[in-house]
Amino acid sequence: MIEQVEKYLLSLQNDICEEFGALDSKSNFDKDVWQRNDGRGRGITRVISDGSLFEKGGVNFSIISGEKMPKSATELRPELEGRKYTALGISLVFHPQNPFVPTTCKPFGKSVYEKYKKWCDDYFYLNHRDEQRGVGGLFFDDLNEEGFDTCFEFMKSVGSHFCEAYKPIVLKRQGMSFTEKQREFQLFRRGRYVEFNLIQDRGTLFGLQSGGRTESILMSLPPLVKWTYQYNIEPNSEEEKLTSYFLKPRNWI
Amino acid sequence: MIEQVEKYLLSLQNDICEEFGALDSKSNFDKDVWQRNDGRGRGITRVISDGSLFEKGGVNFSIISGEKMPKSATELRPELEGRKYTALGISLVFHPQNPFVPTTCKPFGKSVYEKYKKWCDDYFYLNHRDEQRGVGGLFFDDLNEEGFDTCFEFMKSVGSHFCEAYKPIVLKRQGMSFTEKQREFQLFRRGRYVEFNLIQDRGTLFGLQSGGRTESILMSLPPLVKWTYQYNIEPNSEEEKLTSYFLKPRNWI
Repeated sequence: MIEQVEKYLLSLQNDICEEFGALDSKSNFDKDVWQRNDGRGRGITRVISDGSLFEKGGVNFSIISGEKMPKSATELRPELEGRKYTALGISLVFHPQNPFVPTTCKPFGKSVYEKYKKWCDDYFYLNHRDEQRGVGGLFFDDLNEEGFDTCFEFMKSVGSHFCEAYKPIVLKRQGMSFTEKQREFQLFRRGRYVEFNLIQDRGTLFGLQSGGRTESILMSLPPLVKWTYQYNIEPNSEEEKLTSYFLKPRNWI
Repeated sequence: MIEQVEKYLLSLQNDICEEFGALDSKSNFDKDVWQRNDGRGRGITRVISDGSLFEKGGVNFSIISGEKMPKSATELRPELEGRKYTALGISLVFHPQNPFVPTTCKPFGKSVYEKYKKWCDDYFYLNHRDEQRGVGGLFFDDLNEEGFDTCFEFMKSVGSHFCEAYKPIVLKRQGMSFTEKQREFQLFRRGRYVEFNLIQDRGTLFGLQSGGRTESILMSLPPLVKWTYQYNIEPNSEEEKLTSYFLKPRNWI
């Protein structure tokens, strides 16, 4: 079971790095193979820096195991307490150069879309800002109801359609011209990404607390970020439209 | 009791803003007076941006009160559970333009130095990096043993000597020339500051969780930050000396 998931994830990781590496005229995905000294974890970290398309990006595979299920996994499912576990996955983070290239956008037309779209809106919400982190996407974790095979098929389908969904957007937008003000706004919004990742994101915090490889986990953090006290968004500007309209949970389709 | 502390803190806030505002040839400290709608908190936020000396800096006063002591305050002192509280303080954050101007450095020669110096080393430690956040300083909180008057005197003394201790360092170093590489290193180290503040710092997290004013709390975040995957520190460089020697707890005096 684990072997087939690992095999799929490694091949997906390769595909994604090849697809998006090929689009980049300046840089490519480096590869770091790592393992923990205690034998309980290993991974392959693939990071691209200073590319023509991605200012920074990472596609990470990791697999970790332990003698006792961590608290974050058993809180909602006490029947698993004290059980051994193995967890594996890939994690994708893209910080495009061009502010018009979106960072997360994985619409996937299925009957489950509505459910996981709402889950995404609820999850990627900055409590301390009373603000959504981004515009759209899908989120799900701990899927079990339908049995392993169905969940694995669903995961594979989302994974395998990622390139198909994201690549056309990238191709269309990577060459768009942008102003200095739009670049500033991108660096400002990246700050919200950092705040979410370090304060709230369960995956990040679990990784750090469980002694994961910090450099691989925090490769997610943006190459360049600005925090400005009371960032000034002009009324009726495109930036204002983003914050007041697009950053509100909505039915997009 | 609270009135005299508030009076002292407001005058200290003014003094610090005047002292360091006067050193800056480009910018000055703005003033934002704010209060919570429910009447349970108010403050004065003073922020300087794009100065000749400070790229960003803030000196914030705030006072908040509540019907029930928060958990972070009662965990070590259960006898206070359920009690009303009022908390007030000022918070200082400086992000200098020049990488040679330090961000926290408040040595204070007293018999208590050793104790609070160690407390600082222990507190400003990044668990997930196995790394100190900075070189030196003092840390203390929840001082009670000696009674209110003595603790207040001690706090006043630390506060009032801050300018005296920090100003000569600033004056000496603000004009030092630096290379692009040194600037890059400054932006890299600021990332550690962000990680500490958002993941570990009790004051920041308590502020955000208790519904404090987010813009005032997070004015602490640096104006410009870079995260680079596996930042390359050259062997035997000054940067290497900083990380391997100065960022280790040591007796400096």
